Formats: sequence, structure tokens, C-alpha cells
Amino acid sequence: MNGADLLCETLLANGIDTCFANPGTSEMHFVAALDRQPRIRCILGLFEGVVTGAADGYARMAEKPAATLLHTGPGLANALANMHNARRARTPMINVVGDHASYHLKYDAPLTSDIDGLAAPMSDWVGRVTDADTMGETTEAAIRAAMTGQGQVTTLILPADAAWSETSAPMPQAIALPEPKAPDAALVAKAAEMLGNGQKTVIFVSGRALRAKALEVLQRIATKTGARFMAQGSNGRVERGAGRVAIERVPYPVDQAVAALAGTEQAILIGAKAPVGFFAYPGKPGSMLPEGCEILDMVEKETDLFAALQALADAVGAGEEIPLVLNELKRPDAPAPGPLTPEAVMTSVVRHMPDQAIICDESVTSGRNFFPLAHSAPAHDFLQLTGGAIGEGIPMATGAAVACPDRKVIGLQADGSGMYTLQALWTQAREQLDVVTVVFANRKYQILLGELKNVGANAPGENASRMLDLDKPELKWVELARGMGVDAVSVDTAEAFEAAFADAMTRKGPFLIEALI
Amino acid sequence: MNGADLLCETLLANGIDTCFANPGTSEMHFVAALDRQPRIRCILGLFEGVVTGAADGYARMAEKPAATLLHTGPGLANALANMHNARRARTPMINVVGDHASYHLKYDAPLTSDIDGLAAPMSDWVGRVTDADTMGETTEAAIRAAMTGQGQVTTLILPADAAWSETSAPMPQAIALPEPKAPDAALVAKAAEMLGNGQKTVIFVSGRALRAKALEVLQRIATKTGARFMAQGSNGRVERGAGRVAIERVPYPVDQAVAALAGTEQAILIGAKAPVGFFAYPGKPGSMLPEGCEILDMVEKETDLFAALQALADAVGAGEEIPLVLNELKRPDAPAPGPLTPEAVMTSVVRHMPDQAIICDESVTSGRNFFPLAHSAPAHDFLQLTGGAIGEGIPMATGAAVACPDRKVIGLQADGSGMYTLQALWTQAREQLDVVTVVFANRKYQILLGELKNVGANAPGENASRMLDLDKPELKWVELARGMGVDAVSVDTAEAFEAAFADAMTRKGPFLIEALI
Repeated sequence: MNGADLLCETLLANGIDTCFANPGTSEMHFVAALDRQPRIRCILGLFEGVVTGAADGYARMAEKPAATLLHTGPGLANALANMHNARRARTPMINVVGDHASYHLKYDAPLTSDIDGLAAPMSDWVGRVTDADTMGETTEAAIRAAMTGQGQVTTLILPADAAWSETSAPMPQAIALPEPKAPDAALVAKAAEMLGNGQKTVIFVSGRALRAKALEVLQRIATKTGARFMAQGSNGRVERGAGRVAIERVPYPVDQAVAALAGTEQAILIGAKAPVGFFAYPGKPGSMLPEGCEILDMVEKETDLFAALQALADAVGAGEEIPLVLNELKRPDAPAPGPLTPEAVMTSVVRHMPDQAIICDESVTSGRNFFPLAHSAPAHDFLQLTGGAIGEGIPMATGAAVACPDRKVIGLQADGSGMYTLQALWTQAREQLDVVTVVFANRKYQILLGELKNVGANAPGENASRMLDLDKPELKWVELARGMGVDAVSVDTAEAFEAAFADAMTRKGPFLIEALI
Repeated sequence: MNGADLLCETLLANGIDTCFANPGTSEMHFVAALDRQPRIRCILGLFEGVVTGAADGYARMAEKPAATLLHTGPGLANALANMHNARRARTPMINVVGDHASYHLKYDAPLTSDIDGLAAPMSDWVGRVTDADTMGETTEAAIRAAMTGQGQVTTLILPADAAWSETSAPMPQAIALPEPKAPDAALVAKAAEMLGNGQKTVIFVSGRALRAKALEVLQRIATKTGARFMAQGSNGRVERGAGRVAIERVPYPVDQAVAALAGTEQAILIGAKAPVGFFAYPGKPGSMLPEGCEILDMVEKETDLFAALQALADAVGAGEEIPLVLNELKRPDAPAPGPLTPEAVMTSVVRHMPDQAIICDESVTSGRNFFPLAHSAPAHDFLQLTGGAIGEGIPMATGAAVACPDRKVIGLQADGSGMYTLQALWTQAREQLDVVTVVFANRKYQILLGELKNVGANAPGENASRMLDLDKPELKWVELARGMGVDAVSVDTAEAFEAAFADAMTRKGPFLIEALI
């Protein structure tokens, strides 16, 4: 057994059996070891942003990390943006980054770079294997770090000689994972006191507090105490739709967020961060809460959020006798025929999406109405771009489909963001994943045209237009998708989208609809 | 005038008039400032790897830096791999990375990350603007750093509030750029002594020592002293072809490199690094030079390489009276009809490439024979992947075509690498650049299949095949190109490639040929 074999065995002993990969020469012994391990499923991405975006989507649904295989510093660099998103979603992930053999680093060969330095900003944990004999324990440390709290992004640097050297280390066993922390009684008592003092209070939640059962507890707390509750603006995963509790998100535009939170005197955070502007704007506030609002962070990173909610419910006397108000299934009517609009797209999606669909949302401006409209859609999971690093949508849908092969995955995808990591479509084709991608083809960075207006600029001139419009030439998503083995259609009317989407829901396998809006 | 205007004016005052860009909200004031500056040409890339790869190709040909515009940490992360390549090519580059307004950083908004930390591993210089008033001097420091030595990669971090704040700083003037250093007389004397002591000596060159005039001086030194000379394995730019001096490169495979350098007793480095293995392999040497070989690095980073060569020629008495042996133009015969091979592709390229073509090579395994075959091709520039971070080829060709609109750019592109940054084809279409991309579609990571064999693995099994083959489904480059507005054909015979390539040379504008080999 060499070091690479020991790495594979350590992953498998701990239930990590999926590896999204884009290898290079320095990882060839790891590739050979994976080849000896058919229990690990290796999935190729044709770009590293695909690899980590898929690992993120996978872990959000599988509730356990995938491994990734990345090639030296530049391979890691390409992977960082979606590691950033994963970190903001608190996704567990184990990135294995190959490096030169340790004795080769002194030559500063062309691919040499400071991998540890690159990894640090987008990793919660970085470790470097020193030799084959300690491969197991370093890998176990990465797994433990990845499974800390709701999840962490970890980077394990694997020198080639540690992979290829023989070791007589014993076969690894499953390790004890970090236990979630029980909620802090004093913080729960403080929150309960705030909920009883008559002040206007909002409870902000994110992470596992957005699972269906947790939201039921949260709604009972709110019903009992009169508090409001709200999800963070961006969340890794929300269980929602018919039969579940409706929850709103903090709006993205600053003015809307400030208006939504006006009058709030107290904020209680349970897995969420206090709401702030996604960006700063001259003369606008950075915090979305009114000045003087008291903020209590009721949990720590390692706290079990469901237990925290239950403890709070107990403290305020919000038991199961309090009736729940759950969303009812309501399929909208077909959209009116005519030119295709984002609203018509949303309507058809909610009309036809099956029960237990997984929605992967990177629709940016075009899809903002989906969230309110889909309260009454069939029960579904809603996965979202969490870190603002565009290029996550198609990979995330890819990974979610790997995790949940029996559920339909629907990607709501802006065209500008989609171009960042369109290579993920090829992985969908290769793995025959059940993903329907809806591309909102508005042929511009619409959000930025809005922001340009916000900064007080007049109508964009030549230079601004050439940086914010995606026309001249227009992207043809049907050809792009077919070029990667994914069948596709392009539609420009509400009735054509309605028919195409309804049809897509009846079939298995990857498909793409270009919605010309 | 706000800080962003001052940034634009400072770039323009120093002749920097091209900006490859992919902006976001935090750079909107910079976009508005660029919109007020029609003298700056803004070129959109649909992914940041396109942006920096194009800036690299541009500067290699323009001999001055382009600016880039990148959006916060994740935008920079996506740009890093081609910054790594640029750094290895000693390319001047000024990356402007937008960040949140300084006072907004404390909120840790979703896109917040450690931009300085991310930039450091792939930048020769990193600076952060503190306010609008000092924008000019910080930008000047970046320009000075970029123009140090042969060129450096610089990252200028631009907080949004420094961009939007008004300033009364004076209009900037052109700054004095760092003077190249004169060669060190003692080092030159030492090198001359080595060349006269009868030992077997190889002079290794790279960078500007690979321009036509420099190579003539080098050849005369070699003729006079009996030394050999050789280029680094990977180089930013070589002026070569008919009427120029032939120079070989250090071979990529370790065994070939060791064989080529066997018996070498002394190595003199002029802008090159001592030859080392691109990767480490068990039981093979890291240095390609024999043990005990004496190595003299004759120059410093800032040394003028042409002056260094001339000083050495003077010291050994290698004057212009020594006749040069220059490549003669020889167009090969048409390849024999039949199934398409890499060799047939090369033959047709050398048969039909016009004078002063710019070859951008990321052909990895398929194109290795181009270099020796093209000694007798018409005079051309040869630009190469320098840092081993694949995904540079199509962007580099894009940037080279922006720099040299009157010259034909020919991209020799492996399919696996091409998929990394295929979005650059759209920029070629938008800017109507005169680039013909030849994709070697072998539908595998061929180099890695070879490396897997090298590590002693048997025939690849399921997992290895699924990580190293690019089939199932096959990529269709014609559809991918057309999806981005670039016309394309696919050919699978030598005669069809010969006809398609000859035809492509008669037309202007972007075109792609998928060579099914």
C-alpha cells in the first residue's frame, strides 16, 4: 500500500466515496490508487470550477463531503471561487491538491507555486501531508475539520512523493466525528427574554435552521412571541414549498432590505449573519438593521441549530400544540401567450416542477420572483449562490444530481454567470444526470446595468456597453449545450417555454432550455 | 475628477490604453470612468481566465502592459492561473481588482475575501489603494513594478470608495520607468572565461534573448567558442523561422532532456533558469544537467539581456565578421492523403502560414513536432504556455491579435486545455480578431495517459479512464465555436485539413478548425 492508497482507504472508511476530479501529472499515483478503488466514484470536470461547484452541490444534498482532486497551485486557483461559495454555504468539502514531490520544490519548476498561501483565503482548514506514513492521520484531520459545525471547506496538500511512497501504516478505521455543541443555556435564556420584552424582534436563520422540521419549530416560536423570522439573503439550502413553512429572505437591494427591516429593535441570529449590504453604495447604510438595533448571536459555529431552536421553543413555551401554517400546493395557470418574460418562465416552472425537485438558483436578476412564487410549489429544495462568486449554478446542479439521482434537478441560470463554468454541461451529459437547465438569455449583465445607473451614470456609452452587454455576437446556448452532448431547445414565447418545460419534466437526463427573454 | 478617473488618466499618461475586463458592482465607478475615456479600449472576457490570458498574449506582443479589471477576490481567483503563466513568461501586467469600500469590509459581506492574500502567490507586486488622493501614486508604483526587468505581474487593489471619492490631485504625467541594468562586468568576464576553458558548455537563454537580433549575437558567440546554446523548455516569445537563427529547446520528457544535456560540464544562464524536470518522477533526477555541472547565472532580473549578450560577444571576440547560419524558407509538400495525424496538421500549417504569423501554442502532446518543423517556416513569433497552467492558449491568441491586428494569429490548441477557457472564442468574435484556432481533438488528456503509464500502472481501469478520457460524450468544437459566434469546420483527413487550413489563411477574422486526430 502506498500513501495514495492509504488516502483512498481513509476517505472510504469515513464514508467519502465520491471524488470530483481534474487531475494532472503530480496526482498520477493518486489516480492509479483511485483506479484500484472502484468503490470511489470518480467524476471528471473539464475545469476546476466545475469540480468544486459540483462538490458543493453534492454535499449540500448528500450531507457529507465529496473529495475533489485538483492539480497543483493553478488547479486550486481555478477551484477557489466555488470554494468561496461553499464556505459561505458552510458546505463540508475535502479538496486534495497535488503538489510536486517535496524534494522537487527547490527547483521552482514551472508549475511551482505557494499552494498553502493560495488555499488559505478560501479554506477553513489547510493541511500538508508530510509523508506516506502520516497520510492517514492528516487525512483524518481534514475529514474532522470538514465535518466541524455545519461543514467546512478543507484543503489537503498532497506532495507526489507522499502519494507514491510505500507505507506499512495500518488500515484506517472510521474516526469519531466532532459532536455538535449543545446550545448555550445563557444565550437561549437571553433570546427568550428578548422575545418577551415587547420589543420588535426579528429572528434571522440560515444553514440547517432552514430544513423543514426546524422551520416548524421557528414558526411556533414566532407565533407564540409575535416575533418575525427571516432567512439570510443567500442560503445553502432551504426546504420549502407545499406542506412546509413559508419563510422570506432579506431582500438583495439595499433600499428594500432597509424598508423590510425598518422598526426592528432586536435581532436574534440562529445560524445567520446579521443582514448587511451585499455591496457598499455612497450614502447608503452598510447594516440593513436600524441604528441601535440590539443583536444577539445565539449560537456558535459548532452549535446544533435544530437543538438551539428547540431549546428556544421550550424557553418561550412554544410547544407542538401551537398550530402550524403550512404552504398549500397551488399550481398557477399557464402564462398568457406572447413574448417570453422572466415571470412567464417562473410560472411554467412552478406549474410543472415535480414533487421533491431540487432548484439550483443562479438566475441573478431574472429569477428573483421565483422564491415568493414557489411557496406554493410542490415540496422542493432550494439551493442558491451563497458567496456571490458567479459560475456556481451549472456545477452545483451537477453535484446535486449526483447526490440525488432519483430527484429532478432544475437549474435557473443567468446567461452571464452560466458562461463562467458552462463546461459542467459536459459532466451532466457524461454522467447522464437528470438536470434541466433553464438559461435566462437576456444577453447582458443586467444586474450591472442597474448598478451603473445606481452610481449616477447616464446611459452607458461605448466602453460601458461593451463591458456590460453580452450581445454582438449573441451566445447560442443550444449549440453550446449540444457541443457538450446535452440536448437543448431555444424558445422566445411564453407558450413555447410552457410546452418545452412541461415536456422536459417528463424525460430523464440532461436538457437545456434557452429562454430568450 | 474622482479616484477612478485619476486611475484612468494615470494609465493613459503612461501609454496603457487597453483594458481586458470582467467587472462587477464594486467596480462600477471605474466602469463609469472608463466610459468617459474613449482612448482606453475595453475588451470584455466572459471569464477572468480569459481576461488575464489575453492580457498576457497582448503584452508579449505589444511589449507594454495591458490593464485588467477584475471583480473582488473570486474574480481575481479565476484570473490567477493565467497570471501564473504570465509571471513565468515575465510579462508586464497591471491587474486592477475591485474591493468593497474600505468601511464595508468589517461587515464580512458575502463577497468579502482576503484579496491581498490571494494575489500574493501569483503577483510580483501587490498594492492597495488607500484613498482617491493617493490613487495616482499607487497606480504609478504598479506601472513601475510592471515595467521592472523584462516585466512583472502586478495587482492593484481598488476599494470602491477610493474609486468614487473626488480628488483634487493634479493630472498625472508619464513617469520615468526603471532603466534596465547594464550587464555585470565580472559575471560577463567569468562567462567568457568559462567559454574559453575547453569544457563542454551550454548557454541557456529565454525572455528577450530569444528575439531575432539577440539570437544572432548568441549564434556568433557559439560559433566563436564552440559552445552550444538552447532555449528554456517554455518561453514567452521566440522570434524564429526563415531568415532567423534556429534554436532548440530543452526537451520536456526527462529522459530526452537528460540525454540532450549529457556531458555538459558548464551552463551559462542568460535570462533562463537552469533546466529542471517539469515534474518529479520516482528514481529520476530533478536537474536535467549532469551532476557536478557548473552553473553561472550571468544576469540579474533587471539586466538588459541584449546588452548582456553583446557584452559577452565582445568579451569572446565574436564580432559581426562571423557569418550567420540562418533558417531558409522551405514549404513542405502537402501531407499524404489519409486519416488526419498531428504530423499532417503541422505540415499543412507550415505549408500555408503567412509571413509574420503569431503562433500561440497550447497543443501539449499533439503539437510537439511543430517547433522543429517550423525552423524553415516563414518568419513568425512563437508564444507558448510558460507556467504549465492549462487554459492559456485561446485567451493568449486573443490578446496577441488585439496587439497585432495586421498579423495572422494561429492557435495550436489541445482539446482538454482548450475547454478550460473556451469562452475566449466569444471575445475573438466580438472583436473580430484575425485568429485561426486549430483544435487537436484527440479526446483525451493524452499527456496524462502517458504519465499514468510512467508511474507503472497497467492499462487504465474504470476510474482512471473516466478521469483521463474526454469521450462519452465527444466534444463538438464546431458547435461550441458557433455557439460563441466563431465559424468552424471539423475535418478528419489530411487532405481535408490541408484544404481547410489553406482556405482559412486567405480570410480575415476568427475561425476554428477541429482536427480529429
